[in-house]
Amino acid sequence: MQGVLAPVLTPFDRDLNPDPSRFARFCRTLLDEGCDALALFGTTSEANSLSLEERERLLDAVLEAGVPPHKLIIGTGCSALPDTVRLTRKAARARCGGTLMLPPFYYKNVSEEGVYRSFAQAIDRAGEPRIRVYLYHIPQVSQVGIALGVIGRLLKAYPGVVAGIKDSSGDFENTRAMLRAFPGFEVFVGTEKLLLANLREGGAGCISATANVNAPAIARAFRSRTEETQREIDVVRARFEKLPLIAALKEAVASRTGDETWRLLRPPLVELSAEQRQTLRAG
Amino acid sequence: MQGVLAPVLTPFDRDLNPDPSRFARFCRTLLDEGCDALALFGTTSEANSLSLEERERLLDAVLEAGVPPHKLIIGTGCSALPDTVRLTRKAARARCGGTLMLPPFYYKNVSEEGVYRSFAQAIDRAGEPRIRVYLYHIPQVSQVGIALGVIGRLLKAYPGVVAGIKDSSGDFENTRAMLRAFPGFEVFVGTEKLLLANLREGGAGCISATANVNAPAIARAFRSRTEETQREIDVVRARFEKLPLIAALKEAVASRTGDETWRLLRPPLVELSAEQRQTLRAG
Repeated sequence: MQGVLAPVLTPFDRDLNPDPSRFARFCRTLLDEGCDALALFGTTSEANSLSLEERERLLDAVLEAGVPPHKLIIGTGCSALPDTVRLTRKAARARCGGTLMLPPFYYKNVSEEGVYRSFAQAIDRAGEPRIRVYLYHIPQVSQVGIALGVIGRLLKAYPGVVAGIKDSSGDFENTRAMLRAFPGFEVFVGTEKLLLANLREGGAGCISATANVNAPAIARAFRSRTEETQREIDVVRARFEKLPLIAALKEAVASRTGDETWRLLRPPLVELSAEQRQTLRAG
Repeated sequence: MQGVLAPVLTPFDRDLNPDPSRFARFCRTLLDEGCDALALFGTTSEANSLSLEERERLLDAVLEAGVPPHKLIIGTGCSALPDTVRLTRKAARARCGGTLMLPPFYYKNVSEEGVYRSFAQAIDRAGEPRIRVYLYHIPQVSQVGIALGVIGRLLKAYPGVVAGIKDSSGDFENTRAMLRAFPGFEVFVGTEKLLLANLREGGAGCISATANVNAPAIARAFRSRTEETQREIDVVRARFEKLPLIAALKEAVASRTGDETWRLLRPPLVELSAEQRQTLRAG
């Protein structure tokens, strides 16, 4: 797996139920716009605001719409082990390209041993040797990070299964340390701001929220690998980072498609204020 | 609702599946030991490490074992709104004494408006006007607190439904501020260390992890309301607080009952080390 992946936004209807057919259409659009693959059910997708059944129905709709499963990485990491196992099996049996796995995120200050066991048990219990697991390191949100020591143990215990990581820490020193410690490990950065830096160190690409609205330019930057294309995508990213990111991305899609239900988020997230909307438009 | 409540520990079997019959027996024991009521599926219960179906089966077993539903407060707050709604309905239809509701805990730095909407939507969608909701404020774990402004709005919008709060912040200034701002609001502290202080300010009692192992003494302290009984329970609490709390409590129950499967925790939590076990025994 390599290139530019969008962690796909989840559209809701006016009752705040996810809309599978709109989701599937949006997935196809993102691939048409140049995304190499898609990460369904990441932070940007409001995945942890969805029930298991809702995630399953959304994935089914995407597969039924003809999106090739090998182009999908499925967010499966939940707080509860049986939930992670259930979603991981579903992704494996649908022959998806991989799973993106958060550690359990309710308890804080947990030990490295506890984080290791969480992943190990999820993989063991799923019992799907063909699955490729991408670890999901986003400590500023999950508050539970994935230390280098844990990754090393997992790579030793599950070679060919633990395939890579999404490093959304924004700390490029951490990204570089993983690339140097684990040759062949597929390291994606969580923002296109670090795309060129990551590629120069041998990284696999980026899985970035902003790919929901700027996929063609990010895909160009991935292919050309020049400072100039990197600067172009940095400008767009900076505009969105001034605002609550998921709400701003949904606002941009609503505005582009003319479909204002795209603005809807599930609580605890809220839509942009009138003032924030103005800031986005001015950008 | 008032008095001493235990947030009941969840026993697992060797495959790390929750054991409903052992759970039900333990609930009866805790009531026999003097707990006024029980909080099922709190932080101490490893509730967010359980699937929805597992919580449902555990609750069914407790009810089938003859525990009066009005003595149960059920933890129902999940990251995903439909999950919170489903568990809240189940608790309401079983005529449980109330629900203990965490705010969604995946996203961080969410707005007060977002936290308010999370609770409001859960109550609206559950559609069970008889339910009594206890808010669950445990910012050091959930990282998403419940501000006074949010409580005030909820009390206004849902009188008779939003009944109280478990304040596990450990910050008694916060507890006192709630008691003064909202007369009649049932405020439980999350540790018996603050029991006497809470009662003197008009609080309802405590919902404390240590009630799993020291219920008789904590119940005595609640009834006698003296400095002396307070000091007695403080000594026991201090011994457990030196160690990872949930693991230490399970170790103590394993030791008392002679059933060593009580030691098992789901990852990311891990059992006490040999050294920690020694510390506990020495205490």
